[in-house]
Parts: sequence; C-alpha cells; structure tokens
Amino acid sequence: MKKLVLIRHGESQWNLENRFTGWTDVDLSEKGIAEAHHGGRLLREEDYTFDIAFTSVLKRAIKTLNIVLDEVNQLWLPVTKAWQLNERHYGALQGLNKAETAAKYGDEQVHTWRRSYNTPPPALDKKDERYPGNDTRYAHLPPAQLPLTESLENTVARVVPYWEHTIAPEIQAGKKVIIAAHGNSLRALIKYLETIGDNDIVNLEIPTGIPLVYELDNALKAVQKYYLADDDAIHQALQKSKHDE
Amino acid sequence: MKKLVLIRHGESQWNLENRFTGWTDVDLSEKGIAEAHHGGRLLREEDYTFDIAFTSVLKRAIKTLNIVLDEVNQLWLPVTKAWQLNERHYGALQGLNKAETAAKYGDEQVHTWRRSYNTPPPALDKKDERYPGNDTRYAHLPPAQLPLTESLENTVARVVPYWEHTIAPEIQAGKKVIIAAHGNSLRALIKYLETIGDNDIVNLEIPTGIPLVYELDNALKAVQKYYLADDDAIHQALQKSKHDE
Repeated sequence: MKKLVLIRHGESQWNLENRFTGWTDVDLSEKGIAEAHHGGRLLREEDYTFDIAFTSVLKRAIKTLNIVLDEVNQLWLPVTKAWQLNERHYGALQGLNKAETAAKYGDEQVHTWRRSYNTPPPALDKKDERYPGNDTRYAHLPPAQLPLTESLENTVARVVPYWEHTIAPEIQAGKKVIIAAHGNSLRALIKYLETIGDNDIVNLEIPTGIPLVYELDNALKAVQKYYLADDDAIHQALQKSKHDE
Repeated sequence: MKKLVLIRHGESQWNLENRFTGWTDVDLSEKGIAEAHHGGRLLREEDYTFDIAFTSVLKRAIKTLNIVLDEVNQLWLPVTKAWQLNERHYGALQGLNKAETAAKYGDEQVHTWRRSYNTPPPALDKKDERYPGNDTRYAHLPPAQLPLTESLENTVARVVPYWEHTIAPEIQAGKKVIIAAHGNSLRALIKYLETIGDNDIVNLEIPTGIPLVYELDNALKAVQKYYLADDDAIHQALQKSKHDE
C-alpha cells in the first residue's frame, strides 16, 4: 500500500483581509505559520518521514512545507517547486475584497465564480501588472501556458498532468511523497485520486494545516483517506477553511 | 562578467556551546537566524536576484538560504541541497567541547586538527552512531563516499568536483547563483576560485552571514571579490567567525 500526504497551507495575510488571492504571492499570517508548525508536529508524533516533497511557487505553500519539514527534521529533503501546483488563478478578481466584489457583482455571481466547476472569473488583460508573464518566476513558460484566469476545470487541466508525469512516477518508484499546496490545486488532485464528479468536487472542503493521508492502490487511486487530527479539530478547521480562498 | 554570491551560515547552537559540529545537523541559534535575515536584507538593498540556489543537507545552511531567499522575495527559486557542500566532517571530535578537547589532547594538537590542510581529526568507527551511513539522508551513497573524518584537503576533494560538474555549468549557462554553506566548504570553493595555496587557505577567515560576491572571468576564476558590508561590520563578524567551526 502506497501512502501520500497532502497539506493545505494555513491562513495568509489576504485571508485575513478577505481578498481574492489566486496567484498573488501573499505571505502566511502569524496564525498560518502556527498552523504549519501544528501540522508538522502531527506528522512527527505519528513518525511520518518522506523521501521527496512537492509544493507550488507561492510562498504561503513553500513556507508551510519548510516549516513541516523542519518539524519532522527533514529540511534536507529534495523539494520541487512547481507552478502547476499553484492555487487556481483568480483572474481580474485577484486583490479585490470579497465583500466589495459581492456588493458590486451580486452574491450569486460571486458564488458562481467561487463554486462553479467551469466558470472562470473575469480574465486579466495581458497589460495588467498582475499578468503572470510579468513575473520572472514564470518567464521560462510559453505564453499559452500562462493563465489570465482559471476555472477549477482549468486548474485540474494543469494539476493532473503534473501529477501523472512528475509526482506519480516517484510514488510508483516507492518514494514517500508530501505535497504542500492550495485549496484548489489540492481539490484538483483529490478529484483525480478519488474520481469525484465535476459538481461534487466544488463542494469538497479541505481543512488548512492538517495532514491528509491517502492510501493508494497500485494504479494510485485512493483506497482510504484520513486526517491526522480528531473530528473536533477537523470540524473547527473546516469552518474556517471555507472562507480562505 | 559573471557574478556568484556566497554566504556562510550564522551562529549555531553548538557554536554557542563551543562544541565541534562538522556533519552534526545542529540548528541555528536566534542570533544565527538574525544574521541570515541581515544577510538577506543586504542583498535586497543592492537589488540582488538569483536564478538558482545551492546549499548543503545541513539545516543551519538550508535555513540560512531559506531566510535569505525570503528576504529577496525569491523563495520560489529552485534549490539544490547537496551533501558535497556540507561542512568538513570532524570525525570523532564531533559533539565534543572544544575546551575539553584542548585540555585532553593539548592546544597544539587541536590547533593542528583545526588549521592543518591535510591532517584529519581522529576517525569515527563505522559502528559509531555518528557515522553518516546511519543517517537516511546519506543512505543512497556508496560507503566509499561517506567520510569517517576529513581534513580540509578531503573537503576540497568533494567540493571542487561538485562545483565543476554541477554548479559551474549553471553559471556558464548564464544563471545567477547563490550558495549558502559552511566555513570549510566555502574555504574549499574559494581555494579553487582564487587558486590559493594549501598553507594559505587554512588561514582564510570568512565572516558569517555577510554576502560575499565574486566576479568571475570566462574560465570562472575570480577577478574580483567584495563583501556586501562596510569594513567595520566585516571586521566584527570576522572576530566572531574565527571560533565558529
């Protein structure tokens, strides 16, 4: 039985400020740092160790991973930072206050952007300073790969091939893998692992900072899943996590 | 002109406790963390950015690098963690108090172990719990590559090939490189870059936490070097750094 551990980063500064984040490289809040330490300690208490780690190119996920690896005393582990594991790109909504956006476009529209599977938020213009092509970390990518906005469907379309071509072979080779990422890049992966339908995946909530363990069969499909926390802690984290994307 | 930035990690817990460290995976002290932030801010103030980073598999260097990359807002950078950039292995002295060791073996003998180019400290036994073969991070290496002790000459013999085969090609390809490492792995590299003799390199002191910039010619030999700090700050750091290995 192969195991995989996922962890969603904790609270960021813009969660605190109630703003749409997406690919904006916002830092963890003090609380988000504490969540990462807590998640790492949960893994340490259960004697989890890893062979290789993956994360996005966004600092809230990278710092979460670094803190977790420090807690399990494996900072020396090889870490791959992949843009394909980034949060869903939130298009022209990135940086906007969620309440103000709801007041402007209506609750229903905003709910559609947040919870529809295939309706992306309004697209960025390529001249917008928020366009990923203006960021050196994406400079090596062909423009066709740089999103101007994304639905969850679009996010799935980059996460799953990355899983198939880069992460899955490591697990097949017997490596113990941990992935620190974001609400929607983890949804995309979980959709694949558990074969969840388009309409159901949008309602899957993933608590922040709590290690989620998957046991996988030989085809790397999920056989079992569990959080390294008791039900109360998961429930509490879920109540908060719903608003954090 | 190609540039390379080196930074030596700051104070560790065992520097504080005056113990020989070597490959022991000791954490940074609070002061060491502050030194890393300071080094990162010096780079940020001069608008340094990088394309790729290298460090050892020891947490005091990895944390120094992570802090520096956070300060220059490049946590997303690819980082390679290589055992070849580890501190000199200090053999059976690892973990011993320096003053007690001097009392036992005499000042002259300890000075020879610390400052001779080719006299290694007493070797570990392979049954010793400190033997690198007992540490999972080195488990993939053939035993012949795992040191039981090292002279600076032995350290040079692993640092320079790693430089030639792995780091130098990145610089030749136009990448801006930063290396966060240790007193003796940096001495080994500097010996090569500046073509310094065996008897002179042992007396080269590298201040902790201060970025050291090399300008290199097309053969990647040093044309110029300077620290990103004023002379007073370098002098102060040097006085302290002498005792920190």
